[in-house]
Amino acid sequence: MRSCLWEVQVVTSFGIGRVVESTDDKYAKGEIVTGPFLPVAEYCVVPSDFIIKKIEPNGDIPLPDYLSCLGVPGFAAWVGIEVLGEPKAGSNVFISAAAGGVGMYAGQLAKLRGCRVVGSTGSDEKVILVKEEFGYDEAFNYKKETDLDAALSKYFPDGIDMYLDNVGGKMLEAVLNHVNEGARISLCGMISEYNKVWTEREGVRNLLNMVGKGVRMEGFMVGSPSHLARLGDFAREMEGHLRQGRIRSKHKIYHGVESFLESLQSLFSSSNMGKVILQVKPS
Amino acid sequence: MRSCLWEVQVVTSFGIGRVVESTDDKYAKGEIVTGPFLPVAEYCVVPSDFIIKKIEPNGDIPLPDYLSCLGVPGFAAWVGIEVLGEPKAGSNVFISAAAGGVGMYAGQLAKLRGCRVVGSTGSDEKVILVKEEFGYDEAFNYKKETDLDAALSKYFPDGIDMYLDNVGGKMLEAVLNHVNEGARISLCGMISEYNKVWTEREGVRNLLNMVGKGVRMEGFMVGSPSHLARLGDFAREMEGHLRQGRIRSKHKIYHGVESFLESLQSLFSSSNMGKVILQVKPS
Repeated sequence: MRSCLWEVQVVTSFGIGRVVESTDDKYAKGEIVTGPFLPVAEYCVVPSDFIIKKIEPNGDIPLPDYLSCLGVPGFAAWVGIEVLGEPKAGSNVFISAAAGGVGMYAGQLAKLRGCRVVGSTGSDEKVILVKEEFGYDEAFNYKKETDLDAALSKYFPDGIDMYLDNVGGKMLEAVLNHVNEGARISLCGMISEYNKVWTEREGVRNLLNMVGKGVRMEGFMVGSPSHLARLGDFAREMEGHLRQGRIRSKHKIYHGVESFLESLQSLFSSSNMGKVILQVKPS
Repeated sequence: MRSCLWEVQVVTSFGIGRVVESTDDKYAKGEIVTGPFLPVAEYCVVPSDFIIKKIEPNGDIPLPDYLSCLGVPGFAAWVGIEVLGEPKAGSNVFISAAAGGVGMYAGQLAKLRGCRVVGSTGSDEKVILVKEEFGYDEAFNYKKETDLDAALSKYFPDGIDMYLDNVGGKMLEAVLNHVNEGARISLCGMISEYNKVWTEREGVRNLLNMVGKGVRMEGFMVGSPSHLARLGDFAREMEGHLRQGRIRSKHKIYHGVESFLESLQSLFSSSNMGKVILQVKPS
């Protein structure tokens, strides 16, 4: 297998880099490429099979968009909403972690389908952001409206038809008390659960509601072969939205490899807004 | 709306009766008919719209089969396995409450699809029943093999591809620790949960596994419009299996309306085997 040495410029688990050296004819020094699961490092050597895309350096799409709207969060939002959720025009859609990397695109995609969209998030500032910037119809701060059942009764008087879950635990349980017949739940991630041993997690006690309401709940990883097979469809649709100005992004860029821990920690403290990007070297 | 007076002969929530009097020309005195949700009573007056099928009195299928194999349990097993589970030949299929009304047909349908089928049930006698009578490859008594995780490791060394859940709670949680990539879980019912207020139910703590493994879990009621639309497909397929001797049944028939409570209680005590039928009057 041929390999090439990259100068890593911008890195998340999915990253963008400039080729520094290459033993693979397909990639030349100076080219900009993307690949999944890059290490947090200024330089790295990777098998060239890991590269999934070359980016035109003078294209009309800014580099960070390849990591957000056209990267993992955008693709996750698209799979969760369009592939698994399939909401119809007029459906009542709920999205947790609405101001996060996935949530911001999920809400916008559901709005583009003609849905009524409500989000939950962790600060009043983010409530304003998702409503004013991302077009959510309603949003609430779960740290203030701590009675989740009451909040969902208030924001979903006609019940929930589709839920994109980014948090798990108590929020998922509350949603299952408000689902309509045939509701869909896409499980994208469960930020409330990651840092716990599973036996210490709070269980969801009302899965029986899924029987009575005929609910379908499906978990997904964007890296699974069945979803990756749709990457081309996603890229075409999302680049269209982006070029037509139908999708907005918010990025929080941390600078320098030494900021890595701070950037990672922001995901767990409710302090981040939009997609968190770590730029390990100045471009 | 026209109505007719039935003499109820055999009743579950779904029943068979003989028409005693009718003001609807479609149904004549003496005809045998089936309908859902009959009261537990020797006679009842029902709108004739509630009748879903006339049964030929001298047909080749015994009356109880219309309540089991061709009735709600057979249809529930068919929806759970064929419509929602879609197991492939060679898939590893697990069925809880395997000796119950739904479980006995679910296992046989999965075997007809070429799957490897394992069931859990509540007595050694029922373990023998499901293996010898219904063709399960393996079965275990969850009251003896109380470490469900160890039991599933033993019976599913290659993981679980499809699970038909009739019990919920701890069994569902254990299954989620053994699911393969893309596994399907059909939620048919949760016998362990019915008699509890939902906040007192034991929660399922490892739903996060659904994200990592891309698991789809779907609840269903056979009476929902989307499933009822498939009733004709089901009846054709199941009657074919029955006439060709590919499906076996076990019925426990209680006699007399005074046996109702005893028959109902048997569903919750692990004492029943196969489909429980209450024959309210001698035929």
